[in-house]
Amino acid sequence: MKEIKGGITAAKGFKAASTAAGIKYQGRTDMAMVYSEKPCVSAGTFTSNVVKAACVQWDMNIVNANKPIQAVVINSGIANACTGKEGFDACEATARGVEKTLSIPYDSVAVASTGVIGMQLPVDKLVAGVEAMAPKLDDSIEAGTDASKAIMTTDTVNKEIAVEFEIGGKTVTLGGMSKGSGMIHPNMCTMLAFLGTDIDIEKSLLQEAVSEVVADSFNMITVDGDTSTNDTLICMANGLAGNPKISSKGADFDTFKEALKFVCTDLAKRMAADGEGASKLFEAKVVNAKSVADAKTLSRAIVGSNLSKAAIFGCDANFGRFLCAMGYSGADFDQNDVELFFESVNGRLQVFDKGTPIVFDEDEALKIMKADAVTVFVDMHEGDAEATAWGCDLTYDYVKINADYRS
Amino acid sequence: MKEIKGGITAAKGFKAASTAAGIKYQGRTDMAMVYSEKPCVSAGTFTSNVVKAACVQWDMNIVNANKPIQAVVINSGIANACTGKEGFDACEATARGVEKTLSIPYDSVAVASTGVIGMQLPVDKLVAGVEAMAPKLDDSIEAGTDASKAIMTTDTVNKEIAVEFEIGGKTVTLGGMSKGSGMIHPNMCTMLAFLGTDIDIEKSLLQEAVSEVVADSFNMITVDGDTSTNDTLICMANGLAGNPKISSKGADFDTFKEALKFVCTDLAKRMAADGEGASKLFEAKVVNAKSVADAKTLSRAIVGSNLSKAAIFGCDANFGRFLCAMGYSGADFDQNDVELFFESVNGRLQVFDKGTPIVFDEDEALKIMKADAVTVFVDMHEGDAEATAWGCDLTYDYVKINADYRS
Repeated sequence: MKEIKGGITAAKGFKAASTAAGIKYQGRTDMAMVYSEKPCVSAGTFTSNVVKAACVQWDMNIVNANKPIQAVVINSGIANACTGKEGFDACEATARGVEKTLSIPYDSVAVASTGVIGMQLPVDKLVAGVEAMAPKLDDSIEAGTDASKAIMTTDTVNKEIAVEFEIGGKTVTLGGMSKGSGMIHPNMCTMLAFLGTDIDIEKSLLQEAVSEVVADSFNMITVDGDTSTNDTLICMANGLAGNPKISSKGADFDTFKEALKFVCTDLAKRMAADGEGASKLFEAKVVNAKSVADAKTLSRAIVGSNLSKAAIFGCDANFGRFLCAMGYSGADFDQNDVELFFESVNGRLQVFDKGTPIVFDEDEALKIMKADAVTVFVDMHEGDAEATAWGCDLTYDYVKINADYRS
Repeated sequence: MKEIKGGITAAKGFKAASTAAGIKYQGRTDMAMVYSEKPCVSAGTFTSNVVKAACVQWDMNIVNANKPIQAVVINSGIANACTGKEGFDACEATARGVEKTLSIPYDSVAVASTGVIGMQLPVDKLVAGVEAMAPKLDDSIEAGTDASKAIMTTDTVNKEIAVEFEIGGKTVTLGGMSKGSGMIHPNMCTMLAFLGTDIDIEKSLLQEAVSEVVADSFNMITVDGDTSTNDTLICMANGLAGNPKISSKGADFDTFKEALKFVCTDLAKRMAADGEGASKLFEAKVVNAKSVADAKTLSRAIVGSNLSKAAIFGCDANFGRFLCAMGYSGADFDQNDVELFFESVNGRLQVFDKGTPIVFDEDEALKIMKADAVTVFVDMHEGDAEATAWGCDLTYDYVKINADYRS
């Protein structure tokens, strides 16, 4: 497997377009469309939030009915959540617009929204946006990149990646894009992520691979502990790579899953590092835990704690906050088993040794914590399970961004 | 029942003292002692955090063994958590110091600490502090107020209250003090709270009243979602009021519980309003929920959400964030049943009506949200249970306070 240039348009048969539809933002693109020449088997993971956005309900209906997906239309600015029947009607109007302009069935069109909750979408602008994008659909790298920019809200950088790998002598490509960067605490999925691949694979295996990989990638990041109403990941596979179809588990399935994990982990980490107001990536790696569930619970608690996040922002090696977060996480353990280290490109430093604080060099700690990515490494000494979670620091800018988001 | 002046020294037989022991802070008092002329039956609630501070373990040993408590020694600046055997030895040294100076058994002395985790306490300064405070013990209102100031960390105001009520023709008094104001997300208890009463009551009934009241008061507040390693509430009852001893449930028990609830709710709300960096009290009241458990889960999720808290800071009526928090709280409900209102001394405004957003007057919303205390009122229309939770807004100052707490 190797990383290649591009994103959602990297795989054969995938095209993208974007436009400035004036949904809410002015002076920038705010709608994107992804289209596959051939209908795709699709897998999806969606928010576990009880309050699901209208578009999440729309997409779940399609994916759960095993219907093929051929296009996805995304808008940024308004989330279409808490919008009642009018919100659901906006999804259908969008899909009908695509049916009319591209002559594909309206129920093969997924829709996704991100932005303010509790505001209705301007349907006329959505449909006009679809009509503007349809003739511009293009399979260039640039078209994919532009789409990844159009779906941004408070993101400061766009997020896309693509990889190539071989299956049965054929080159298979997988590309994707995602966006953050607030209300990020995925539970079953992330904010918005779209993956396109030309692999030929059974739908049930695609869904299995996606669900498994999402649990270890997107579901292991947090920005603010707020699980969105709109979290959506859709993976489309159109089969144009011409590989021998994957219809059972085995080496080919594993090869695909490995590529999928690489792509999802990369996108997830970029979302964490670009969390609202973030100045750095904050990673927690827990090893030798009693179970994977415990390791996940502990690592997520560390990167999710406001006090831990503020300490990372201040480059303050206040390790007691990490132990405190582990302690209230719900996982059971004995603090007298635990070792805790700080790590970054600038070095590694132990600060807690099985129940007892270590008197450490503050200058050394500061040097390590000043890096752009800081890891809290925890050895539980209670088993052999491990997990890694990713978050970001809590900064003044997070407050600034969210104290007046709607205006 | 009526509120009276004073705090921890209000009830008969209770004395307090404080001193500047130089534990960590300079130029202010940082140790307090509470003493009862007569040994007390005591009840306590302690942190549910797996990583319990040494002093929490010390106090739990006393309370769980049904031993009387006659004194409590508290220090601020260092939490004595994650400190191993040395930390536990510091508790014993403190208690032995009290035994020596006041001639009471060392195992009738509770200890409590608050401050930085993972740092050892200077035992010599602790013991010197005890020796300095013992001769100054005084039953004046001022001595109690001074004690409530000595236990503050990032609190901006001290918190104390006292009430009087009648039982069997005798006047009974209950006074208390507490401190916040970060790492506040009590689970079984709050950060530090001490209550003294001259009521005569069976220990088991005292514990039952305390546990029940704490669940609806201190356990319903959150500042930052971080459940401390040190949360401790101790209620001491010395019996000096001379009331007919409460040895069974009934009208007298209910009278006491009502007074206890008034005192605990007042202290809890003051802790929330004085949360680190807070500019206002943020209350969520959920009514007509399916169960009390659901109502508590929903109301706590609303005041616990970073995005909700930032919106409250910005006076932004971004109600979708509250619905989002309710949605990921774990409680099951249908958004099409829900009505949501903003309330404050400046008015009341409905913004969401059973699944559909209401177009509301932004100026009216701003006026309501500019108050010092803002309530999000949610009618679930699914049952008859209700609960109220209290928190505070998320501000620049929260980040500032916590980005470099140790220095």
